[in-house]
Amino acid sequence: MGKLVIVGTVAFDAIETPFGKTDRILGGAATFIGLAASQFNVDSAAVSIVGDDFPQEYLDLLAHKGVNLEGVEIVKGGKTFFWSGRYHNDMNSRDTLVTELNTLADFDPKVPENYRDAEVVMLGNLHPGVQMSVLEQMDTKPKMVILDTMNFWMDNALEDLHKVMKHIDVITINDEEARQLTGEYSLVNAAHKIYEMGPRYVVIKKGEHGALLFNKDNVFYAPALPLREVFDPTGAGDTFAGGFAGYIAKTGDYSFDNLKTAVIYGSTLASFCVEKFGTERMENLSTSEIRKRLDQFKSLTQFDIELT
Amino acid sequence: MGKLVIVGTVAFDAIETPFGKTDRILGGAATFIGLAASQFNVDSAAVSIVGDDFPQEYLDLLAHKGVNLEGVEIVKGGKTFFWSGRYHNDMNSRDTLVTELNTLADFDPKVPENYRDAEVVMLGNLHPGVQMSVLEQMDTKPKMVILDTMNFWMDNALEDLHKVMKHIDVITINDEEARQLTGEYSLVNAAHKIYEMGPRYVVIKKGEHGALLFNKDNVFYAPALPLREVFDPTGAGDTFAGGFAGYIAKTGDYSFDNLKTAVIYGSTLASFCVEKFGTERMENLSTSEIRKRLDQFKSLTQFDIELT
Repeated sequence: MGKLVIVGTVAFDAIETPFGKTDRILGGAATFIGLAASQFNVDSAAVSIVGDDFPQEYLDLLAHKGVNLEGVEIVKGGKTFFWSGRYHNDMNSRDTLVTELNTLADFDPKVPENYRDAEVVMLGNLHPGVQMSVLEQMDTKPKMVILDTMNFWMDNALEDLHKVMKHIDVITINDEEARQLTGEYSLVNAAHKIYEMGPRYVVIKKGEHGALLFNKDNVFYAPALPLREVFDPTGAGDTFAGGFAGYIAKTGDYSFDNLKTAVIYGSTLASFCVEKFGTERMENLSTSEIRKRLDQFKSLTQFDIELT
Repeated sequence: MGKLVIVGTVAFDAIETPFGKTDRILGGAATFIGLAASQFNVDSAAVSIVGDDFPQEYLDLLAHKGVNLEGVEIVKGGKTFFWSGRYHNDMNSRDTLVTELNTLADFDPKVPENYRDAEVVMLGNLHPGVQMSVLEQMDTKPKMVILDTMNFWMDNALEDLHKVMKHIDVITINDEEARQLTGEYSLVNAAHKIYEMGPRYVVIKKGEHGALLFNKDNVFYAPALPLREVFDPTGAGDTFAGGFAGYIAKTGDYSFDNLKTAVIYGSTLASFCVEKFGTERMENLSTSEIRKRLDQFKSLTQFDIELT
């Protein structure tokens, strides 16, 4: 059982979907990652920042799930990062209505002393300079560094992104972002260009079409479970990353075969995340529910073919 | 080993892709279906129509592959159906440059006497009235009728489409068409609405994202093999359908489990089809190449998870 460092936002979200809307609720990449990773009972620590407007009950929720919060700075008189968005009818696209960086604008991450020897580091979507700063604080080189990022940083901080990419093992991005980062339409070609930028594993998230895991010699395709209804996609990508990182930290096995299983766990957890608003579904998720859905994943994808 | 009736176009195609362009080459739904099904050495017959401008060598090619051509009418002085299209850079969309129906405009299909007891009927993409006429000619009810269609018929012959759908077992359409046909965005919900229209199996083709097989109780997701390059997508859907139908005709097993394997074979053959212009790759495809790619499909999708 390894230690897991999670860096990312802990935030307020306000969400509108065709099914309804929320007031400010608990959100943020580190929140979703932490909740997903907590399913594996790993020793995890969140590195983040909030204002003193952030409810103690939200912090208690994460702490109760076993996420160490020493690295979450609470800024006196500061306001917590706030994001608000509205999803379109197809749930695959959204408009950002409000982004208030607030305390996040001056986020200077501090990895707690006791986690500077963590085996796994999950760099949630943030400025790549902040992600790099976390890596520089590690006393021992982590066994696996996973980085999540997005097109915004490709547009606005590409140099910093390339710098941090040299120090990571796995990148998780969506298909459009992989194309933007490499100028390659074929995802196979895109993955090969990304290896040259640093990571030896590339995870390409395709939303309702599943996720691809590449390394130089192998490729694995985990479809997404076809759902009757996607209620709120917010946090699905972070939940995927949290399940992926949590499973790797739990098993301490960094092989392609084990990363395949990590992708399946990530997809499984993400399929729950979208069933309710925000973190609601992830707060109350039982092991037996997860087992049942893993079984569904098996029957969704497994076949027995006799080569004649 | 059952008999397979294939109805669809036998045609000239002229294709432009970012990789080059062709003159008039062999094309048509029945052609691609027949070539794919021929991999299973089934006793198949094509039902179609051409003009006497159609080269004997193309007919010989199909005959040589074991496709019975008694049902392919050759109209003296008539011209063969011609389609020309240009693919966009992403290969996922195309513009139709020319559609000349020619002899197809008056196509009155005739199922050869000896194939009116076929176990499997593959209704390639055509006017649903023509598809219905083929079914009406069968002396015995086929064990499995598979229908391929497209948005054009939903726009222009919806009533006829609904009529023929009442008599089929499997429909193959793409994701956007499933949504158009049902008004449901969720493919799970779309499949459920389609059952009510007739078929008990629904295959939803998602191009580079693979294919889904649904029946009321089960769902199976076959991803597409990630390819470095798609050279020419023309005929990929028909090749999928031909592999699917051919495997079912060969095995005579109409269970969900066997249809899963049929989907895998269809996807595998389609992954070859797109490697060269038109039918070129399908004309010269060895059993060992297919076996090798089936192995790739296995390692692409199969995982071993221990539920803890």
